[in-house]
Amino acid sequence: MDRLDAVVVPGRYQPLHEGHLHVFKYALGVAKRIYIVVGSAQESFTLKNPLTAGERIVMLETALDEVMGRGWERRIRVYPVMDINMNKVWVRYLQQLLPPFQGVVSGNELVLALFEDEGMEAIRPPLYRRGECSGTLIRRRILEGDPEWRRCVPEVVANYLDSIGFTHRLVRLARHE
Amino acid sequence: MDRLDAVVVPGRYQPLHEGHLHVFKYALGVAKRIYIVVGSAQESFTLKNPLTAGERIVMLETALDEVMGRGWERRIRVYPVMDINMNKVWVRYLQQLLPPFQGVVSGNELVLALFEDEGMEAIRPPLYRRGECSGTLIRRRILEGDPEWRRCVPEVVANYLDSIGFTHRLVRLARHE
Amino acid sequence: MDRLDAVVVPGRYQPLHEGHLHVFKYALGVAKRIYIVVGSAQESFTLKNPLTAGERIVMLETALDEVMGRGWERRIRVYPVMDINMNKVWVRYLQQLLPPFQGVVSGNELVLALFEDEGMEAIRPPLYRRGECSGTLIRRRILEGDPEWRRCVPEVVANYLDSIGFTHRLVRLARHE
Amino acid sequence: MDRLDAVVVPGRYQPLHEGHLHVFKYALGVAKRIYIVVGSAQESFTLKNPLTAGERIVMLETALDEVMGRGWERRIRVYPVMDINMNKVWVRYLQQLLPPFQGVVSGNELVLALFEDEGMEAIRPPLYRRGECSGTLIRRRILEGDPEWRRCVPEVVANYLDSIGFTHRLVRLARHE
Amino acid sequence: MDRLDAVVVPGRYQPLHEGHLHVFKYALGVAKRIYIVVGSAQESFTLKNPLTAGERIVMLETALDEVMGRGWERRIRVYPVMDINMNKVWVRYLQQLLPPFQGVVSGNELVLALFEDEGMEAIRPPLYRRGECSGTLIRRRILEGDPEWRRCVPEVVANYLDSIGFTHRLVRLARHE
Amino acid sequence: MDRLDAVVVPGRYQPLHEGHLHVFKYALGVAKRIYIVVGSAQESFTLKNPLTAGERIVMLETALDEVMGRGWERRIRVYPVMDINMNKVWVRYLQQLLPPFQGVVSGNELVLALFEDEGMEAIRPPLYRRGECSGTLIRRRILEGDPEWRRCVPEVVANYLDSIGFTHRLVRLARHE
Repeated sequence: MDRLDAVVVPGRYQPLHEGHLHVFKYALGVAKRIYIVVGSAQESFTLKNPLTAGERIVMLETALDEVMGRGWERRIRVYPVMDINMNKVWVRYLQQLLPPFQGVVSGNELVLALFEDEGMEAIRPPLYRRGECSGTLIRRRILEGDPEWRRCVPEVVANYLDSIGFTHRLVRLARHE
Repeated sequence: MDRLDAVVVPGRYQPLHEGHLHVFKYALGVAKRIYIVVGSAQESFTLKNPLTAGERIVMLETALDEVMGRGWERRIRVYPVMDINMNKVWVRYLQQLLPPFQGVVSGNELVLALFEDEGMEAIRPPLYRRGECSGTLIRRRILEGDPEWRRCVPEVVANYLDSIGFTHRLVRLARHE
Repeated sequence: MDRLDAVVVPGRYQPLHEGHLHVFKYALGVAKRIYIVVGSAQESFTLKNPLTAGERIVMLETALDEVMGRGWERRIRVYPVMDINMNKVWVRYLQQLLPPFQGVVSGNELVLALFEDEGMEAIRPPLYRRGECSGTLIRRRILEGDPEWRRCVPEVVANYLDSIGFTHRLVRLARHE
Repeated sequence: MDRLDAVVVPGRYQPLHEGHLHVFKYALGVAKRIYIVVGSAQESFTLKNPLTAGERIVMLETALDEVMGRGWERRIRVYPVMDINMNKVWVRYLQQLLPPFQGVVSGNELVLALFEDEGMEAIRPPLYRRGECSGTLIRRRILEGDPEWRRCVPEVVANYLDSIGFTHRLVRLARHE
Repeated sequence: MDRLDAVVVPGRYQPLHEGHLHVFKYALGVAKRIYIVVGSAQESFTLKNPLTAGERIVMLETALDEVMGRGWERRIRVYPVMDINMNKVWVRYLQQLLPPFQGVVSGNELVLALFEDEGMEAIRPPLYRRGECSGTLIRRRILEGDPEWRRCVPEVVANYLDSIGFTHRLVRLARHE
Repeated sequence: MDRLDAVVVPGRYQPLHEGHLHVFKYALGVAKRIYIVVGSAQESFTLKNPLTAGERIVMLETALDEVMGRGWERRIRVYPVMDINMNKVWVRYLQQLLPPFQGVVSGNELVLALFEDEGMEAIRPPLYRRGECSGTLIRRRILEGDPEWRRCVPEVVANYLDSIGFTHRLVRLARHE
C-alpha cells in the first residue's frame, strides 16, 4: 500500500498514554499527515472523561513537543470533535469538519467497523503493552493511589496532570459517582 | 499591554479573504499564539455558508503556507467549532474546546461584546479595505459573474475555490434559495 | 439507464400539489420503488410549515389513493424525516433512516447538489406548471382569499385541508408572523 | 367561567413593558395563579433577544415588586423556558416543566392556536395601547435615541435597563447585524 | 371494545423476532391499521442497537411479505422514529410525526404508562414464548455461537441478517464494549 | 463570611426528602435568597427520574408551605432546568437562565467542583441522616414495599406522592428496566 495522504486517529485521551504515542508514530508511517481527533469533546468532569477537550489538546501538544521533536506541526493536527450520537453518520460528520482523509488508524473495533462500512481504509496498529496502559487502568490506579500509572505516560504529561490537580479532580468525581 | 499568550480569532471564512489575513497578522502581534476558530462548522451548502469546515481549513492552511511562510504552525492553530446557539455561554464553550486563551481579536461587535461580558481582552483590529472585501461581497460578486472578487483573496485561495467548483456550487445554491 | 431499485423524493408538502404528483409519477418511471420523504417533520404551525408531518402523511396517502389507484403501497413509501441541519451529512442521515436507495428525484437545487456530492443519482424531473403551482403560491393565495389555489391540488386534498380548518390556521399564523 | 386554578402567560419580555403588566393583571382576574413563562430562554445578545433569561427575571421581579405590591409571590411564578422548536409538542413540553395549568392568556396567535389545538383554555386579553408599546418598538426607539420608549416601561424597569447598559448593548448588536 | 382505527406498535426490533410478529397479528385484530414504530432510529452499530433503522425496515418488510402475505401494505405502515429523550412529551411527539392513532399495543411497561398518562388506549398483548425469544437473548446467543437464536426469527429474517454480516458486526461490537 | 445575596441549590428531588429540607434551611442561613434548581428537568418516567419537573415543583412548594411557613416565597425560588450535558459550561448556563447568584450549597462533589472551577462559592452543608434518607434509598424502599420511606419525607409530600400514584408508577418502571 502506498502511503496515504492523511488518516484520522480518534481517541478520548483521558489521559494520553504511551499506547497512544505508539499509534501516532505508526500512523505517521502510514500517512503523510495525521489528524488526531479529540473525541467526546463536549465531555469533562466525569470519571470516564475527567479532562476538557482544551486540557487534552494542551496535554497532547506538550507530549508531541517532547516526543516528536521540533516540526511535528507540519504533519500532525489536533482537532476537538463533539459526539454526534449517530454512529452510521459519524464518518461523514468527520469529513464535514476536517480536511480530506483516506482512512483511520485505530484499535477501536467500532471505529474500524464504521470506516470499513464506508469503504475507507481501516488500519489496526500493532498492539503495544495492551493491558498495562489504558485510560481506564490509569484512572483506576490514580484513584487507588498506585503511582505505577506514571510509567504509562511521558513525564511531561504526568507533570501537566499534576499541575492541574488531576488526582484531586478524579478523587472528587469518584466520590460523586 | 504585554503580549498575551493566546487569543482566538473567530470567523466563518466563507471564503477567506485579505481582510482576514490582516487580522491574523495583527493578532500575531498581540499574542504569542492565535487560535483561528472556523465557526458555524456544522453549516455548508447554503448561500451564506457554502463551504464545509473541512474545506475552510484546507483553504486557510493553503493561504497560511503562502502568506506566512514556513513555520506558521508553531504559532497558529485552526479549529472547527460548531454553533451552540446560546450567546451567553459561547465563550465558556470555546474555553471547554480549546487550549487556554486570554482574549479575542475580532471586528465583530457580538464577539467583542461577549468577550467583554466575560471580562476578557476584546481587541478590535484596525480596519482594512472594509467595504471592498467581505465574505458577503465576494459571494455576491461571484454570483454576478464579476471577477473583481479575485482581488480580495490570495491567488492560492482563488485556485483552491476554482478546483472545488465553488462558483458552480454558489450558482446552484442561489437558484435554490 | 436501467431502472433503479429505489429513489427518494424529498419535499415539505405544505401542502401537496399537482406538481408533486407529477414528480411521483416521473419517479415511478425511474425506479421500482419510491420513498417520499416528508421533510422538516419537526415543523408545524408556522406560515411556511403549517401542517404537521402526520397531517402531511394523511394528505399524501389520501391523494395517492385517489390518483394512483389500488396497490400504490407496493411501490411507494412515505416517511417523516426531521431536519438534521448539517447539509454535508444529510444524505448519509437519510441512508441511516431509510431502506437502501440509489438516488433522488427532485427539482430542488440543494438536494440535487448534495446527492451529486455523494456520487449518487440526482435526477431532475421535467417541469410541470412551475410558477403556477407551488406551496408558497398556494399558501399566499389562501391568505388572499383567492380560490384559484384549489386548481393546484387534487379535490380530495382540498377536502382534507378544509376538514382540518387549514385556511383558518393559515390566517391565524399570518396574523402572528 | 369560573376562575381557573392556573394559567401560563408566555412572552419574551425583551424588554418588559406596560402591555405585559396589563396582561398579568388581567390574567390574575382569570386564574388564581399565573405562571409567567420567560420564553426563548436560551437566547441573548441578539437584536431581537438582547437580554438573558436571568436578566429578564430580575426585570420582571423588580417590576412586580413595584406594581403589584407585597405578596405577589403567592400568586405569580416566573419560569425560564428554552425553545423546543416543535410547535405541536410545545404545550406538552410546558406541562412537563411547570405545575398544572388549565390554559393560557396571550395575544399571540400562535400561542392561542396551540392551546386551542390541545383543547385547553386560550384566552385573549383586551388590547392595551397596542402599536404604542411593544418590544420591537421599544428596541427600535432605543436604537434611534428616542427617549419616548421610557413611557412604555415602569420607571424601575428603565432604571434596571440603564444599570446594565442596555442601550449600549443594543447599539453594539445593531452594528453587528 | 370496537375496533380502533389505528394503533402504534413501537419497538427497537434489534432484531425482529417471532414475539414481535405475534404482537403485529394481535394488533391487527384490535385496529384497522397498525403503525410499526422503529424506535431509537438514530442508533446503530452498538451492542444493544446493532442495526440501522433502514436495515430494520428492510428486515420488517421482508418478514411481513413472508408472514402476512400480499397486501399487508394496506393495513401496516413502518415508520422510523428517533428518540426525543423526554418521556412526558413522547406520545405527543409521535402524534406530530404519524397519522392519527387511538392507542398502543405493547408489552413495554413504560410505553403503556405513557399512553395511559395521556388517556389513550394502552393494550397489552398476550404473552408469547416470553423468556425464550427476545432481542437481548438473540443477540447474546449469536455472540455465544449458539444457533438456537434462529428458531426465534423467521427464516427470511435469518437470511437477511446473514446477508449483511450481522454475526460479524455483533462480534466486533462486543469486542469494543 | 458575610451573607451572600443568593445561592443556587441544585438537585433532582426524586423525590424531595428531609435531607433536602435541611439543606434549604442551611442555605437560607448562608444567603438572602436561594434558587432551588430542579435539575434534569427533561427527565421523567424512568426509575431514576420518575417525576416530571412540574410534579417536583408542586411537591417542593407543598413542602415549603408546610415546613417554612407563610412568606417563604420572598426568599426562595424554584426553577426547572434541563441538562446541558457539558459540565464545563454548566455554571455559565445556570447564570444565563437565573438571576445573579454568588455560589452553590450542595453535597454533590461534581457540583462543588464545577463551582470551584469557576471561582465561585462552593458550600458543603453539614451532613444530615445521610445513608438513611436519599432519593435512591427511598425509591428502593418503595419498590420493596417497605413503608419506612415515609419517615424520610414530610407527610404532605407522602400524601402528594400517594395522590399521583407514585408507588404504582415506580413499580411499572421497575418492571420495564
